[in-house]
Amino acid sequence: MKMNKGRLIVFSAPSGCGKGTMLAEILKNERFRCSVSATTRSPREGELDGINYHFLTREDFERHIAAGEFLEYAEYCKNFYGTLVSEVDSYLEKGINVILEIEVQGAMKIKQKRPDAIFVFIAPPSIGELTRRLRKRGTESDEVIAERVSQAAGEIAMAEKYDYVIVNDALEDAVSDFFAVIRAEELKAVCSGEIINEVLKNA
Amino acid sequence: MKMNKGRLIVFSAPSGCGKGTMLAEILKNERFRCSVSATTRSPREGELDGINYHFLTREDFERHIAAGEFLEYAEYCKNFYGTLVSEVDSYLEKGINVILEIEVQGAMKIKQKRPDAIFVFIAPPSIGELTRRLRKRGTESDEVIAERVSQAAGEIAMAEKYDYVIVNDALEDAVSDFFAVIRAEELKAVCSGEIINEVLKNA
Repeated sequence: MKMNKGRLIVFSAPSGCGKGTMLAEILKNERFRCSVSATTRSPREGELDGINYHFLTREDFERHIAAGEFLEYAEYCKNFYGTLVSEVDSYLEKGINVILEIEVQGAMKIKQKRPDAIFVFIAPPSIGELTRRLRKRGTESDEVIAERVSQAAGEIAMAEKYDYVIVNDALEDAVSDFFAVIRAEELKAVCSGEIINEVLKNA
Repeated sequence: MKMNKGRLIVFSAPSGCGKGTMLAEILKNERFRCSVSATTRSPREGELDGINYHFLTREDFERHIAAGEFLEYAEYCKNFYGTLVSEVDSYLEKGINVILEIEVQGAMKIKQKRPDAIFVFIAPPSIGELTRRLRKRGTESDEVIAERVSQAAGEIAMAEKYDYVIVNDALEDAVSDFFAVIRAEELKAVCSGEIINEVLKNA
C-alpha cells in the first residue's frame, strides 16, 4: 500500500497542562515530529539553529512574510516568531506527522489556512488541579499563578473551536488518547479513497 | 464527570471480512453491545427471543412500522427484519455503545435518520485475499464464491459513504483501530462542551 502523507497537528494547551511531558512521550514515535519555529531573536546559549529555532535575520524574515511563506507569524517583544510552510510540508510529504505547538490565537489563524490540519486541545482535569500543579512547581508567585490560571480559563473556553479535547489527567491515558485521535483521522473514509481502490485492485 | 451517552455504531462488512471474529473481540468490552433485530420469521431450534432476535407477529411488526418505531426495516423472503428505535435508545441512555451490524443499503437509510451515528466499514486487505478466505472455509462452490466476491466489491465501492474504513488484515490491529475510532469520537470537541464546563467549574 502507498505511504500516506503526514498530517499537520495543531496542539495547544494552557500552561500547566503537562504539554511538554505529553510531547516528549509522543515524539518517541518516529512518525511524529514538532515543527521548528523561525525567529529573529538571537540564539541563547546552547540553542542550535534548525533544532531550537530557525534563526533568521529580520530582513530574511520579512522577505518570507512578503512571499507568503509563513503558515503563521507574530511579533513579541520586537522579535518575530513564525512557522514556515516549507518546514511543515517537507515532513508531511515524507509521511511524518508534524505537531505545531501554538497558543489559541495562532491556532485559529492556521485553521483558516489549513482546514485539513487536526486541532487538538489539551485541558487540565479542572481549574483547581491546574492551580495545584502550577503551585507545585514553586517557581512563581501567587500573583503570577492567579494570572496564568485566569489566562488558562480563557483558553479552555476556546477549546470547542478545536477538533478534539483531551483531558490530561493521567499522562499515559492522555498520550493514548492522542494516538487514538490520529489513528482515527487516518481511518476516515474521506482519506480512504486510495485505500479502497487498492483493495479493489489487488488480486 | 457525568457519564456520556452511548453512541450508535453502524458496522458493515462484506462476507469474509472477519466481521464475526471482530465483533466477538469488541463485545468483550462491556461498554459495547450488538443491537438485537426484530423479525417476523419463526425461531429456529435453539434461538431465544430477545437474544438472537425479538420474535414478533406480523401484526405487531406492522403496528411498529405504522408507529414509526423502526430505525430501519426490510422484507426478505416474505419475512420482516428490522431494528427498533427502543432497542437501540435504551442502551444508549445507559452509556452503552450499540453496534448495528447491517449491510450497505440499510446503513444508508440509517444515515438519514441518525446522522450522529458512527459509520464503520470493514474491508478485506484485497479482493484476492477475500477470495482466498472464502475458499478456505470450503463450504461454498466456486460459483457462489465468485458471486460473493462480486457483491463484496460492490459494497467496498460504497465504503467512502462511511465515516471510517478499517482494513481487517490482522484481527488485533483491526480491533484496536475500531476502539481508536470510538475513543476519538468521544474526544471530539463538539462532544466536549459539557466536559469543558466541568473543567472550568471544578475548583
